[in-house]
Formats: sequence, structure tokens, C-alpha cells
Amino acid sequence: MDDQRVSLASLFLVYLVLSEGRCSVGVGSRDEPGYKTRYVEVQVDHFSFANSDTFQLRYLVNDTYYKDGGPIFLYTGNEGDIEGFVKNTGLLIEMAPRFGALVIFAEHRYYGQSLPYGKESFKDPAHLGYLTSTQALADFAVLITHLKKTVPGAANSPVFAFGGSYGGMLAAWIRMKYPHLVAGSLASAASIFQYPGITDCEAYSHVATRTFQRSGAGCPERIRSSWDVIQDLGKTDAGRHNLTSMFRLCEPLAADDMPTLVNWLVNLWMIYALTDYPYAADFLTPLPAWPVKEACHLITSHEDVLSGVAAATKLYFNFTGQAVCLDISQPYYGGLAWQYQACTEQIEPICSDGVNDMFPAIPWDLVAFSQACYQRWKVRPRPYWAVTEYWGRNISAASNIIFSNGDLDPWSAGCVLKSLSDSLIAIVMEDAAHHLDLRPSNPADPPSVVKARAQEADIIEKWIQEYHLTT
Amino acid sequence: MDDQRVSLASLFLVYLVLSEGRCSVGVGSRDEPGYKTRYVEVQVDHFSFANSDTFQLRYLVNDTYYKDGGPIFLYTGNEGDIEGFVKNTGLLIEMAPRFGALVIFAEHRYYGQSLPYGKESFKDPAHLGYLTSTQALADFAVLITHLKKTVPGAANSPVFAFGGSYGGMLAAWIRMKYPHLVAGSLASAASIFQYPGITDCEAYSHVATRTFQRSGAGCPERIRSSWDVIQDLGKTDAGRHNLTSMFRLCEPLAADDMPTLVNWLVNLWMIYALTDYPYAADFLTPLPAWPVKEACHLITSHEDVLSGVAAATKLYFNFTGQAVCLDISQPYYGGLAWQYQACTEQIEPICSDGVNDMFPAIPWDLVAFSQACYQRWKVRPRPYWAVTEYWGRNISAASNIIFSNGDLDPWSAGCVLKSLSDSLIAIVMEDAAHHLDLRPSNPADPPSVVKARAQEADIIEKWIQEYHLTT
Repeated sequence: MDDQRVSLASLFLVYLVLSEGRCSVGVGSRDEPGYKTRYVEVQVDHFSFANSDTFQLRYLVNDTYYKDGGPIFLYTGNEGDIEGFVKNTGLLIEMAPRFGALVIFAEHRYYGQSLPYGKESFKDPAHLGYLTSTQALADFAVLITHLKKTVPGAANSPVFAFGGSYGGMLAAWIRMKYPHLVAGSLASAASIFQYPGITDCEAYSHVATRTFQRSGAGCPERIRSSWDVIQDLGKTDAGRHNLTSMFRLCEPLAADDMPTLVNWLVNLWMIYALTDYPYAADFLTPLPAWPVKEACHLITSHEDVLSGVAAATKLYFNFTGQAVCLDISQPYYGGLAWQYQACTEQIEPICSDGVNDMFPAIPWDLVAFSQACYQRWKVRPRPYWAVTEYWGRNISAASNIIFSNGDLDPWSAGCVLKSLSDSLIAIVMEDAAHHLDLRPSNPADPPSVVKARAQEADIIEKWIQEYHLTT
Repeated sequence: MDDQRVSLASLFLVYLVLSEGRCSVGVGSRDEPGYKTRYVEVQVDHFSFANSDTFQLRYLVNDTYYKDGGPIFLYTGNEGDIEGFVKNTGLLIEMAPRFGALVIFAEHRYYGQSLPYGKESFKDPAHLGYLTSTQALADFAVLITHLKKTVPGAANSPVFAFGGSYGGMLAAWIRMKYPHLVAGSLASAASIFQYPGITDCEAYSHVATRTFQRSGAGCPERIRSSWDVIQDLGKTDAGRHNLTSMFRLCEPLAADDMPTLVNWLVNLWMIYALTDYPYAADFLTPLPAWPVKEACHLITSHEDVLSGVAAATKLYFNFTGQAVCLDISQPYYGGLAWQYQACTEQIEPICSDGVNDMFPAIPWDLVAFSQACYQRWKVRPRPYWAVTEYWGRNISAASNIIFSNGDLDPWSAGCVLKSLSDSLIAIVMEDAAHHLDLRPSNPADPPSVVKARAQEADIIEKWIQEYHLTT
């Protein structure tokens, strides 16, 4: 990242960028301590023979606590360099000693070093088209068979999949689609229900608003009132000049930039809610402890609505004091690859109505979305495919999946919040943001998260026992 | 088929041809009575975006007995024109009145009229490469969502998948991979275990031999003794002339044709066992009732071994009296499309040892197989992929599948013969050949098959009740 300009939202569609940003994490350039880098050869296309190319998928191995025959804890990597997920995910390695587990972090294709066509991977649809969740699941399935053959003592080891956010969806799905390879999964913040037709697109905005409500009296109301102020200012040159100055934008705001500014702010509040961790963390960006509370304090303590909003904006983008100006022409985070996934099969509609949430009314517009995706990528979304492929809301035929959810996390709106059977177990963690249970333990963790982690470990122990009784 | 020459086996690899032949059926040129022809648009490639082409998948609908809200009985079509499967499958329509069921026969991509690229479909790997079971399952999944949206009263109808042989494998797999769309499956003669590493490749030959043993005292011994006689004759011009004459071959047998002749005969006996129905049937070819018994009678009643073998050969290829000569340079049956599937992902090894079976010792040679496939199709088999994709022998996470098996059927060697849970139910039918339970009822059906059909209907009734209790 350029240290003079902070990338912000160039939102051709607001929720696309939100999706992009939701799980991208800082990327390390060196091997994580304790982890060895390995590769497994996989097909570029597992499901047809028109393309017989193969590539090397990266995975990181930590055998510090592994005892022969112990379980394999496999993190099913999401949309980013896998090293970043090692840094932000403590649960696997913290749980490993109890079980003598081998810890593996598998990289998702088209991220980090796992590029099927190297630098050409993003060249055109012919190269990029194999970036799908189903292909990624098949990569992980091949990896598991490889591990069982090559890791000493692991031929009969139960494998448990772990993941957060999109990685959590993959963890759930791999148990659903390949249960012979995966004895159970911990799917944290796995919004497997956030697809067209099976979850109200406003639900996400409701949760985000609730998180702000709980973080400061009157905070959502102040944010809601900001939209008219911003739109009014946007109508005049002087007003836009004022906005440019207050938000320290890198480029002067033009009249037709107004939707971008609004979308960018909507995204900002949503991401605040997403990353509302109880301690200072560097997940999407460095933030203080309980950042929503901090933001709400700024928003409600300024007499002028806009000054409060601008102050909260600066908190997010300038917490470490590096940013000189804000560039709303760039996405918050997230690379090309996730933008592409969000334009193809990972269509997770989010909207707002301006009444039951603190946002302006922004409908979900599939036609406009599809058009924008086509212009950008020359592909059309297949918005209903994920529901067909991944069972919609009818997942009762699955088993051995823990769905953990933080109640501050807007993505929880599309997650499994109620247990569906003895082995499809939902855990809702009070005062927890996006997959907090997966992060390294911290003295500031709320009791709900400490309890959830203990429960998760006990369930896994039970599933390990059942596995050895039945295989 | 040319009425002057009967196509026989041009076996570049014996078991490939056996696979080809195992389910091909006669093709009708007109709509089946009671069935309407419909089409649904599906992606050529469901699992990536490198190819966004779509095509029209054909399905046949019979709503004679359908009552609003009744179940949908979906035959998951296998390797052939779907009309042939309507003719050879009576169970669905016979069971429909009891349940008020809608009967659908769905065609498998690349067969019949469901050609993704029309006449170009077989042109090269780029066009043919999308012929895989996983893509076909996705086609059927899309079809089910389409039916639920478009058939009156069917929005909440339970869907049951039916299939025999490869179609039975698809019926089992669609319940395993898409259980939200399929309430249960009847998978007859579904050799889902017939893959490298999970079933002994000799098992198939053992069952074939057993079927001959049960059909005539001394019959397998006579066949076993024939191989040396044939090989000895093959060593001299006079001997080969004799063989050409006895088998009424279209072309004089050359020395290097001998392996082809032997493979062709091995396949013949295996196919006899496969189609050993209790009444005259035209499944792969017109045959009398209990054809193995008829063949064994010919084999054992001739004093000369070879005369008996030749007589049984003529029974198979000349039952209707049309054939003038036999052409061993052609495969028994089966089109290009199944040859391709058998060379890519449907790798089902079969071998023989010449001791525990009545065949010459023919090992399973993956290297030679792969080479032959590459020469023919320019693709390499992925022999272990099916075990990864379809769960190997560890299918205990599945539910609501009936696996029915005929004990005369060599393919039963790779099928599920023992119930694995209350809802993974195996039925073994005594005196039944390849998926006899699916064929139209016949007074000559053995009691085991009558009983199996009743049991199957009762289980489906139970699953329908459970479906309505839980949805």
C-alpha cells in the first residue's frame, strides 16, 4: 500500500466491495514461524477434460504438536495469501497440543502463491475462469488424500476443516461435499445462507445497525441523519468543496462522485461492525479496541453531524497516522480475484431500506450488478447457482459441522444461527465480531468466545472418538 | 447396425469395451407413448467460467398419474439415448399410480439429443471435455430446480432419483452431492465401488464365473479349457483358418488378431452374465430367456469344446437370424461418448487370474490403458479422481439410498451389497441379472425381484412421509 494515499472505495456496486474486503488480511512475506511451506499438484479443472493443465497449490504445515495418528486440522483458506490467515487465526495451533494435531493452512487457488497460470492467471476469462469455490474444494480434497498418503501415521487420521468467513463456508461445504475426507468442520462466520432468495438482503444492514446501536446511544440515528446532510452538500460546488476538505479526499469531489462517496461511507460503517474486536487488531486495517464504540464516541460527541462522521472516517483510515489523503476511487481492500468471485458465483445480496437500518435506501439491483460485472470481467454472474450447488437453506442432510457466529458481525445475518440437529451445531457468541473465535486468544476476549472455544474443542474431541469407533 | 455384419469387439482394451457395452440400449426414433419431450437450458461448464456456453438438455415427462404435490420420479439417464431407457425401465411408471408421481427421464449430456455442441460435440477435447459425471449431476440438479419452479403443484414435491448401472451410480451420487434436491434414490446395479484401489479387480470375473457355474454343470470348466485350444489353433495358418470358419468371422484371422479374439470372447461371456434375464429380452441384443443357461447347454452338449463355444457365440450374435458374419474389429455396443468416459474418469478396473475364474489371466494394466486412451482421445485417465469425488467406500455420511443388486450380475462385485445404516439399504436379488428390478414387470420375474420392487416402493413411501414431516 502506498503510504501517502489510503485506498478507499471505488464502488461500482457497494456490496461487491464489501464482499471484497471482508476477509482480506495482511500478507506476510516470509514463512510463518513454525510453518513449513509445501505444495501439492492439482488439476486446474477437476470437473472436465477440456483443460488438463495442473498447478502447484501451496499449503503451510506445522507439526510442532503432531503425534502419529493424531487429527489433521486443516484451515480451508479463503480469498487471500494464506500467510495472512496464519497470522490472524490462532485457534488451530492453540488447540493442537490437546489433540496432538497436525496443523495445515491450505491456500485458495488464485491467491498468494497458488496461481494456476502464474502472472497470466488474471489475463482473461480463459485463464481466470477456474477461480470457483467448487474447484477450490476439489483442490482441498486432493490435498487431504495427498496428506493421508504422505504424512507419517496419518493414513487413518481424522481431518477437521476450519475456516472463517468465506473460508468458513468452504469448511462447511467440504464436509457437505466430501464427508469421507473430513470428519467434521468448524465454520465460523460462514454466511452460507447469504444468497439470493434465501435470506432477506436487508438483514445484513439490520445487524450492522444493531452493532452501532449497542456501541453508543444515538449513534445510528446520527449516522442516519448524515445522509441528507451529505446529499445536500453534494448539490453545490461549495458543499462538495466542504466534503472534500472534511474527508481529506485526495481528489476534489465532483457531482457525479456523490454515489461513490455515499457507497464508500455505507461500506465503512459495515466494515466497522465487522471488525469490532475487543482489542486493538490489524485485521483489515489497524484499529483500536472496540472500534465501533470509538467511532460512535466521535460521531456523537461532535455537535456537527458531519464533523463526527469525518472524524470516525479518519479513525479508520488514519489510525496509525500514515494516511495523508483518502482515495475513494479505490476499493477498500481485496484483490482482483475476490472481485471476480463476487461477480461470478459468490453473489451475496445486501441492501438497505433507510428505515429499519441507519443507511440510505439502496436496493439490491441484480441487473445493474450483472452489467457492471460484465463490463469489468466479461462474465455474467450465475446468481442462483450457489443455492443449487450448496443446498440453500436445506442442509439437514449434513452432519458434524459447528457454525459459530459473532452477534456483532453483520455477516451473521446469512449464517446458521440455530442448531439443526445433534451434529449441526450453531454457537452464537455475544459481543463478538467476525469469526473472533478463530483469532488468537486475548485477555480481552469476551466470556462468550472463551466458552465457545472450549465447546468447540469438546465437540471435536467427541467427533474424534466417534471417528475412531466407526472407521 | 448393418444387417449383413454384426459388430463385435475391436478391443484395444478388453474392459473398456465391456464398460461401453454395459448399458447401451436400443434407441427409439419416435417419442415414447405417454411421454412429452422437454428441454432445459444448462451450462456446458457448471464449475468454472472459462466457458459460458449453454445447451438444451432433453428430458421426457409422463404426467399420466401425476397428482399435484405428488413426488417426482426422476430417472438419471445414463450412457445412451434416453428413449432407450424408457423402453427398458418399467419400474417408475408402474410405481407412479400408487404415489401420484410425475415420471421424468432425463438424458445424460453428450448422448441422444443432448449434445452441447451438436455435431461438433465429439470433434476434439475442447468440445468433448465437458462430458463428465459431475457435470451431468449438475445438469440434473438444475433440471430439478427447474421442475420445482415450473411443474404445477411441485414446488414442495419430494424428488426420487432412479437409475440402473451408470445411471444408478448417478442416482446414488446425486443424493450424496445434492441431498436438498433429492429426497432419496434407488440405485440399481450401481457399481460405485468398482474403482481402483477399493475393489479387487478380479471380483467381477468371479461373479461372472459363478453365474455360469449356476447355469450349467461343468460350463465354466469347458470355457476355461477353451482358451488353450484357441491359442493352439492360433499358432498355425490352418488353425486360424479353422477359427475363422467356426466363428464365421467376416475377415480371416491373422496371427496378431489373436488377442482381439480372446478379449472378444472374454467380453462375450461377461455380457452373457450381465444380461441373464429370465425372459426373452432385447437389452443389449435380442436374447432368449435365461441366455447363460442356453449358452451353457450349447457349450457342454458339444463334444468338441470349440464347437460348443462357437455355438454359444452364434446364439448371442445371431439370435434373430440376421447376422451373416461376425466382425471382431468393432466394439460390441456403446458409442464414442462412453468410450471417452471410460478413458477419462470412469476407470473401473476388471481383471482375471485364470484360476479362480474361467477366463485367461488378464491383468489390469493402467499404463497400457492410459496409453491407449491417449492415442485414441488425446486425454489421460484420472483413475483415482472418482474415489475422491464420490467418497470411495466410506459413504456412511449419506442417507436415503437403496442399492439393489442382482446376484447374477458381474457388476454387483463393485456394488453396495450390505446395508450400511437404516437409510443406506442394500437389497440382493437372487437369480437376477443387471438391474432386473428396474425393467418392466414380467411373469417370469424371480420371486426375489417381485419382493424387491415391493420393498423399494414401501421404503419410498416411508421417505415421502418423512420428507413431508420435515419440510
